[in-house]
Amino acid sequence: METRAIHHVGIVVELDQLDEAVETYRRRFGAEVEGRATLTEQRAEAAMLRLGDGRIELIAPLDQESGIARFLAKRGPGMHHVALEVPDVAAALEELERAGANLIDRVPRQGLGGHQAAFVHPDSAHGVLVEVVSHG
Amino acid sequence: METRAIHHVGIVVELDQLDEAVETYRRRFGAEVEGRATLTEQRAEAAMLRLGDGRIELIAPLDQESGIARFLAKRGPGMHHVALEVPDVAAALEELERAGANLIDRVPRQGLGGHQAAFVHPDSAHGVLVEVVSHG
Repeated sequence: METRAIHHVGIVVELDQLDEAVETYRRRFGAEVEGRATLTEQRAEAAMLRLGDGRIELIAPLDQESGIARFLAKRGPGMHHVALEVPDVAAALEELERAGANLIDRVPRQGLGGHQAAFVHPDSAHGVLVEVVSHG
Repeated sequence: METRAIHHVGIVVELDQLDEAVETYRRRFGAEVEGRATLTEQRAEAAMLRLGDGRIELIAPLDQESGIARFLAKRGPGMHHVALEVPDVAAALEELERAGANLIDRVPRQGLGGHQAAFVHPDSAHGVLVEVVSHG
């Protein structure tokens, strides 16, 4: 699989902390808000922040049963996933499967900001939930 | 604070898994090894990997009492910190302190690959251990 860059780091916070988290990253670390959206499939609200050439995605659960909510209940707020930018998500998934990776999504889903995205299980990357994303 | 980019994402693994983790990220995600070093202060062994324009730092504890070892014992392998690239670490620390952040390092330390680095407490970034780094 060809990785072009780290597209973003995903960080989970409680829903009632989302605005404050955006403000903290803006004021302390120079972040600018690139977009904000409801992720229907993940039942979460998300804000994408730019930090220079980098990005951080702040994610908050909209109910108590989603994967994001369970992560938050178990581990508290903090880093949730690393998104790697690839030329083509479907091609990356094929290569990952051939390389023995455990895929959460076998078909790309629509991510925040119109990109294609798919998740790879943490047991395939030494405890790290990896997202592969591409634009368009 | 001005952030130029996400310099790297730090990932903690057990020492006997470090070589395998390097190989996993190389084979599955197209990583290339940029450097490897012993971090004396952190009592850890680290490998810096390039993934396109991005970087991942794999870190493994060299003893059972270090902060890295305690993190690993408590949370298991996975994401440990996000490193933000800034023009000047000392200036960034001054700005962070003025903005009310809780600094772990008040003076920059020497990081892997000759850069300056300092850590900011997770309670200042919604559960995320933030490193600020600059080259030279």
